[in-house]
Amino acid sequence: MRAMTYRGPYRIRVEDKPDPRIEHPNDAIVRVERAAICGSDLHLYHGMMPDTRVGHTFGHEFIGVVESIGSSVQNLSVGDRVMVPFHISCGTCWFCARGLFTNCHNVNANATAVGGIYGYSHTTGGFDGGQAERVRVPFADVGPEVIPDWLDPEDALMMTDALGTGYFGAQLASIREGDTVVVLGAGPVGLFAAKSAWFMGAGRVIVVDQLDYRLEQARTFAHAETINFAEVDDVVVEMKKQTDYLGADSVIDAVGAEADGNFLQHVTSAKLKLQGGSPVALNWAIDGVRKGGTVSAMGAYGPIPNAVKFGDAMNKGVTIHMNQAPVKRQWPRLLEHIQAGHLKPSDVITHRIPLEDIAEGYHLFSAKLDDCIKTVIVP
Amino acid sequence: MRAMTYRGPYRIRVEDKPDPRIEHPNDAIVRVERAAICGSDLHLYHGMMPDTRVGHTFGHEFIGVVESIGSSVQNLSVGDRVMVPFHISCGTCWFCARGLFTNCHNVNANATAVGGIYGYSHTTGGFDGGQAERVRVPFADVGPEVIPDWLDPEDALMMTDALGTGYFGAQLASIREGDTVVVLGAGPVGLFAAKSAWFMGAGRVIVVDQLDYRLEQARTFAHAETINFAEVDDVVVEMKKQTDYLGADSVIDAVGAEADGNFLQHVTSAKLKLQGGSPVALNWAIDGVRKGGTVSAMGAYGPIPNAVKFGDAMNKGVTIHMNQAPVKRQWPRLLEHIQAGHLKPSDVITHRIPLEDIAEGYHLFSAKLDDCIKTVIVP
Amino acid sequence: MRAMTYRGPYRIRVEDKPDPRIEHPNDAIVRVERAAICGSDLHLYHGMMPDTRVGHTFGHEFIGVVESIGSSVQNLSVGDRVMVPFHISCGTCWFCARGLFTNCHNVNANATAVGGIYGYSHTTGGFDGGQAERVRVPFADVGPEVIPDWLDPEDALMMTDALGTGYFGAQLASIREGDTVVVLGAGPVGLFAAKSAWFMGAGRVIVVDQLDYRLEQARTFAHAETINFAEVDDVVVEMKKQTDYLGADSVIDAVGAEADGNFLQHVTSAKLKLQGGSPVALNWAIDGVRKGGTVSAMGAYGPIPNAVKFGDAMNKGVTIHMNQAPVKRQWPRLLEHIQAGHLKPSDVITHRIPLEDIAEGYHLFSAKLDDCIKTVIVP
Amino acid sequence: MRAMTYRGPYRIRVEDKPDPRIEHPNDAIVRVERAAICGSDLHLYHGMMPDTRVGHTFGHEFIGVVESIGSSVQNLSVGDRVMVPFHISCGTCWFCARGLFTNCHNVNANATAVGGIYGYSHTTGGFDGGQAERVRVPFADVGPEVIPDWLDPEDALMMTDALGTGYFGAQLASIREGDTVVVLGAGPVGLFAAKSAWFMGAGRVIVVDQLDYRLEQARTFAHAETINFAEVDDVVVEMKKQTDYLGADSVIDAVGAEADGNFLQHVTSAKLKLQGGSPVALNWAIDGVRKGGTVSAMGAYGPIPNAVKFGDAMNKGVTIHMNQAPVKRQWPRLLEHIQAGHLKPSDVITHRIPLEDIAEGYHLFSAKLDDCIKTVIVP
Repeated sequence: MRAMTYRGPYRIRVEDKPDPRIEHPNDAIVRVERAAICGSDLHLYHGMMPDTRVGHTFGHEFIGVVESIGSSVQNLSVGDRVMVPFHISCGTCWFCARGLFTNCHNVNANATAVGGIYGYSHTTGGFDGGQAERVRVPFADVGPEVIPDWLDPEDALMMTDALGTGYFGAQLASIREGDTVVVLGAGPVGLFAAKSAWFMGAGRVIVVDQLDYRLEQARTFAHAETINFAEVDDVVVEMKKQTDYLGADSVIDAVGAEADGNFLQHVTSAKLKLQGGSPVALNWAIDGVRKGGTVSAMGAYGPIPNAVKFGDAMNKGVTIHMNQAPVKRQWPRLLEHIQAGHLKPSDVITHRIPLEDIAEGYHLFSAKLDDCIKTVIVP
Repeated sequence: MRAMTYRGPYRIRVEDKPDPRIEHPNDAIVRVERAAICGSDLHLYHGMMPDTRVGHTFGHEFIGVVESIGSSVQNLSVGDRVMVPFHISCGTCWFCARGLFTNCHNVNANATAVGGIYGYSHTTGGFDGGQAERVRVPFADVGPEVIPDWLDPEDALMMTDALGTGYFGAQLASIREGDTVVVLGAGPVGLFAAKSAWFMGAGRVIVVDQLDYRLEQARTFAHAETINFAEVDDVVVEMKKQTDYLGADSVIDAVGAEADGNFLQHVTSAKLKLQGGSPVALNWAIDGVRKGGTVSAMGAYGPIPNAVKFGDAMNKGVTIHMNQAPVKRQWPRLLEHIQAGHLKPSDVITHRIPLEDIAEGYHLFSAKLDDCIKTVIVP
Repeated sequence: MRAMTYRGPYRIRVEDKPDPRIEHPNDAIVRVERAAICGSDLHLYHGMMPDTRVGHTFGHEFIGVVESIGSSVQNLSVGDRVMVPFHISCGTCWFCARGLFTNCHNVNANATAVGGIYGYSHTTGGFDGGQAERVRVPFADVGPEVIPDWLDPEDALMMTDALGTGYFGAQLASIREGDTVVVLGAGPVGLFAAKSAWFMGAGRVIVVDQLDYRLEQARTFAHAETINFAEVDDVVVEMKKQTDYLGADSVIDAVGAEADGNFLQHVTSAKLKLQGGSPVALNWAIDGVRKGGTVSAMGAYGPIPNAVKFGDAMNKGVTIHMNQAPVKRQWPRLLEHIQAGHLKPSDVITHRIPLEDIAEGYHLFSAKLDDCIKTVIVP
Repeated sequence: MRAMTYRGPYRIRVEDKPDPRIEHPNDAIVRVERAAICGSDLHLYHGMMPDTRVGHTFGHEFIGVVESIGSSVQNLSVGDRVMVPFHISCGTCWFCARGLFTNCHNVNANATAVGGIYGYSHTTGGFDGGQAERVRVPFADVGPEVIPDWLDPEDALMMTDALGTGYFGAQLASIREGDTVVVLGAGPVGLFAAKSAWFMGAGRVIVVDQLDYRLEQARTFAHAETINFAEVDDVVVEMKKQTDYLGADSVIDAVGAEADGNFLQHVTSAKLKLQGGSPVALNWAIDGVRKGGTVSAMGAYGPIPNAVKFGDAMNKGVTIHMNQAPVKRQWPRLLEHIQAGHLKPSDVITHRIPLEDIAEGYHLFSAKLDDCIKTVIVP
C-alpha cells in the first residue's frame, strides 16, 4: 500500500509499505477514506518530539471502511464505515474503567503516562497511523464506532480528535454559568473549545491568536470576541483590561494542542524573547486567569521540562486541569450537537489534498500559507 | 524597639527601629511574645526572592499581646493574647468572600497574585514582620484571634502558618478514603501535612526527605513510612516500587514550602544534575503521582519560571491544586484536634533563641545544623 | 399607612396600620413602589401554612425608595431606589458566611430551619411584608441593593424572588452540558427555571403544566418543549416516553414553589386520587427522573409530613437538592443576563392592580382567571 | 436440594426444591457454605414488601463454592470459593458503566428503579436467594470474586452486603474532615457505617438506637458515642443538645436498612404516635441534621409513600443522597482494611444456625431475642 513516511525533520515522503494485517483476534484492518493532519503532527514534522522514528507513518485522525476483522471482534462487520478515536484503549483496565481512556495501562509498553496513540512518536506505543491507504486498528471492539448514515464523513473525521479535544478542553475548564473564558489559539481545537464553552454556559468567550483569518473564524464559527496578540502591546495586559483587571475565570490553552511553530516563533522573537521550548501559551494562561481560577490544557507537550511561571500560579491559587482527551467519551453528546445543527465541524476544513501530495500539505499547514486551518488527506 | 533587619543575602542584624503605630482605625499594635523562622524565610535570607529590601523586618509567624487598637476595632481588646495568621486579608472583597484569604484583592497594591503577608518581600505588600518586639497588625478585626486559655502559646504559634499550611496541603490533595499519599519534605509543613493526611482518610502516608533526624520525626510524629532519597538510586523509581508501579494517588509538595537550599543542593549536585532554579520536588511529584492523580502544592515559589515537566503532567492527566494557605479557615478544626490531643504542634520545635541572637538562628536553620527542624524567636 | 392584612383563609383586606419605624441602627424604611404576589403567598391565603397570623401583612417581593435609615447604615442613602431580597440575613453567621443566606442563624428566633422572610408565616420570623405603603428592612446593609439606572424597576421586582429562585432551581439540578431537564410547573418560577436551564447547558428542557396559556409562555418565553399533563393519560409515562424510557437527567419541582391549589386540585381529583397534602409534583419528579439522577426543589412546603415515594427514590439512587433560594447570590449574574438582553423578566407579568384592590388580585391569581401568571401590586 | 421457602408473613419453612441449573452461558452454580439473614429480609418476613411470593427462597448474603459454570464464564473455575455481591449487575449498561451497579438496566425486567437482587421480592427480579444449599449466579464474570486465602470466610460473608452497605452509607454522607456524623440504628449496617465514618475523617460519630447490647457494640466495635433514644425525652432535642444546638453535619439513616419492626414499634407506640409506615429514622435524620447538611440513606424502603418531613428538609436546605450500595465497588478498599486489621467484620455475628432451623433464626432476629445482632445460616 501507499503510506506517508517520516524521513527526518521537515522531510515527508509517500512510499510503498506492506499492507497491515490482523495480528490479534480483536484487531481490524481499516481502509482509510479520509485522514487529517493535526497541529500536533507538526511537532513530529519539526523533529521536536523525541523518539520519532524514520519510516513511521503519521496520522491519528482518520475514518474508513472495515476490510477485515479478527476472530473475536463483535461490534464491527466488514464493510462498516467507521470513525476511530485517536487514542488506543483496552477499555477494561483500572484507568479505562474510570473513563481515563488516554491513560490506558495496557496498550502501551511505555505506559507510565499516556496510553497508545496512532501514528505518533514511539513513546505513545509506536502504532502506525492513518495517513495511508490502510491501518491496523487494535482493540477494535473498544474504540471505533460506525458512522451514522446522516453524518457527513468529514464531520466524523473531525470527531476523531480535534472536536472531541476542543470540547474536553472546555470541560476541563470547570465552567460555571456566566464565566468569562479565554481560549488561547484559534486552530481547530481552539475553535471547537470556544464553541463548546458556550454550550457549557460561558458568559463571555474570548479567543486569542495572531492570524487574522483564524480570528475571523473565531468570530463567525465560534461567535467569540477576539484579540490579535500581534496587534497589542502586551496580550496579558489586554486580557486583564477586558476582564475588569481581574482576569478570566478560566483559560484554555489550545496552543500546546497545535504548537505550529508559527505561534511560538512570532511570540518568542518579537515579543517575549523567550527561548524556544518555552510554553508561551501556558504562561499567558497563568498570567491571564483570575486568582483562584482554572487553567485547562489538553495539548501536545514534549517531555522536555518547560519554563513554567509556577510561582505565579501558586501565589494566585490557580488549579491546572489537563489530560489528553478521551474523545470517545464525548461522542454521544457531540453527535447530538451535530444532528441538531448546533455545529458543523467540517466547516474548519480549508484544504483537501491527495495522499501522494501530503508533503505539500505538511508544508502548507506548517507555514500557515493560503489561510490554512485544517488539511484533509484523501488516499 | 529592637527588630531583626535584612542587610543583604545571608546578612541579618538586630537593630533599633521606631515603634510601629496605629495608621488606620482598624489597626492593632501587638507586642510579640514568640515568633518563628519559616522555611520560606530562608528564600529571603538566601537573597533568592526578588524585591526583598534592605532594612525590612522578616517574620510572618508570631503571637503576642495587644498593646493598642484603632478606633474601629471591635473584636480585640488591649491585653488580649492573640495569634495572627501570616496572611493579611480585608475579609470582604470578592476573593475573601470565597475564602480565598491569601488572594485578598484589597491589602496589596501589587495584588495580581498573592495578597498581603507579614515580613516578606515587597511583592507581598511590604508589611514589616514579627521578628521584632512589636508589629502593626492591619485589619485587626479580620485576622487575629484570641488564644484560648487552655492552648499552649507555642502551639498557637505553629497555627499562624506551618500547621495550617500543612493541613491545607492535605486538603488540596483531594484525598479519598484509602488513598496513598506521598509528602515530599519533612520540615514542619511536611510533617503537619503527613499528619493531616491521616485525618482525611489516607490509607498510606509516605514521607520523602534526606535528613535522618527529620525522617525520624516523620515516623514518630506523623506515623508515616519514610524514604531517604539520598539512600536510594532513584527516588521516583522507589516511589513507584512502593505503589505497585502505579504511583501515589496524591503527592504533596512540601519542599517548595521550605526550600532550604539543602534539599535542592543535595539533589542537584549529586543526583539529577539540574540547574539551580529547578523545582525538583514538583517534578518528583509529577513523576511519582499516578495517572489521573493529584499534585498539591502550597509552598513558596519565586517569580522566576521553573523547569516543570509539564508534558509528562499533561500526558498523565494530572490535576495540580495549589495556593498559599488561608490558615484562618483551618483554625476551628485545628483547635479541636489540639484540644482532643490528636496532635501537639509544638513538638516540632527544636530550638528557642533570643531575638538578639537571631542571626545565629537563621544560620543554624539554613545549614540544618544541630538537627534543627523549627526555630522559635523570643523577643 | 395603608397595608394589606390577613383576616383568615381566603380573606384579605386593606387597612390602616401604623407606619413602620427604625427599630435598630441597621434598619431602613422603604416606601414601596411595586410589590408582587408570589405563588407561595397562596399557601398563606388558603390558610394552609401554620402560624399565619391575623393582621399580618404579606409580601416578600417588593422594590421601593429608601425613606430613612438607621445610624449604622453605610451602603444605602435616603432616596435610593432599591430592590430587597425576599430573605432577611445577617450576612456574618456561620451559615451566611457559606452563602446559605436563607438559613441565617441570627434573624429568626425560630431558626432551626429557615431564616427570616418578609410577610410570611411567623415561623419565618414574623416580619411584616411589602404589600403595603412602607416596610421596615432589617440588616439594611446586607440585603438591599440600589437598582441600576438602566434596569426597569419591574425587572428588579422579579429579581427579589421569582427570577433568583428559578435560576437557583436550575443550579440545584446539577445540570451537565447536554442533560435533559424537566421543569414541573409553568408559573413564574418554573418559567425562569426553564430559561435558566438553557444558560447552564441543558440539551433539552421540557415544561409540564396543565394550563395552556402558561404552557404557551413556556414555549415562547423559555423556548421549552411542553407537556399538558391534563391531556395525557399518565404524565410519568409521558415523561419516560419522551426520554427513551430512561427518565430525565434532572427534574426541577417548581410547583411546590407555587402550589396554587389548582395544580393539585386537578391532579388529585381527576388523576391520582391522592389526598390533599400529597406532594404530587415531588413524586412526579421522583418517578420521572432517571436512575442516579437529580431532583431539585426550591418551593414552599409546609411543616406537615408529605407522602413522598421515598422507597422509589432510594431504589433509583436519586439525589435530592433543595433549599430556599439565596437570591442575593444570583443577582450579579442575573443583572448581566438582563442587561445583555438574554431575558426580560417582567415579560411574565400579566396583571397590575392597585393596593386597594389587592383582594381581587389574590382571588384572580388563586383561581387562575384571566390567564393570570404574575400579579403586581401598585401602592 | 434443601432450601428456605416463604409461606406467608411470619411463616418460613425448609423444603425440597429442584437443584438450580445453568440457564445462560454466563451462569454459575454455587454450593452455599454460609448465608446470612439481613435486616431487610425482615421486611419480607413481616409481609411488608409487595410482590413477595410464596415459595420464594430468600437470602442475598452468601458465600460458597463454584460447582459448575456456563460456557462463557472466564473469571471463575469450578472449585473456587467465592463471595457474591447481593446485587446482580450486567457490568456493561449505561448505569453499570457509571458504577451504578445496583441500578443495572439489564438484569431486571422491572428495571425502572433497582436492578436485580438475590432472594428478594419479585420487583427486584425474582431471583432465588442463598438461604439454600445451592444458588444460581447470573453474570458470573461480573459479580462474584474469589475469596483470598487469608480472608476468614465469615468476613467475606459480611462483605456481600452489610459491610459494603455501611461503608457506602458513610460515602453518601459527604463527610469532610472533622464533621460530626450521627448514625441512626446500631444493627450491622449502622455499626459498619459508624466505623467507616472514622475512616473518612469524621470528628465525632454518634450512634442512636434503643437496645443496650447494640449500643454497647457501637461503643466497642465502632468506638462511637451513643444515645439510647428510649432513655431520652426527645431524641431530636438530644441530638441538637450534643451538637451545640446546630445539628450534625451528616446523618446516616441505617434503620431503613434494617427496619426490624422493633425500632419502629417502640417509637411509634411510645414516643411519636406515628402510624406504621412512617419513616421515623428518616424524619429524625431531617430534624437532626444541621441546616445545609447531608442525609444519607441506603436502606430498604418499600414502594408505599412515606410521610416525610419534606417541608423541613426544604427549609433547612438539606441534601439527601441515597441508593442501594454497589458493594462490589467497595471491595478492594474493604479488603485492605480487613487485611490491615482495622476491622474484623465477623465480630458482629452473634448466632450461627443450621439451615434446617432457619425459621427459629428469623424469629430470634425479628424479636431481638438473645442479644441477636447478626445471624449466620449454615447449610
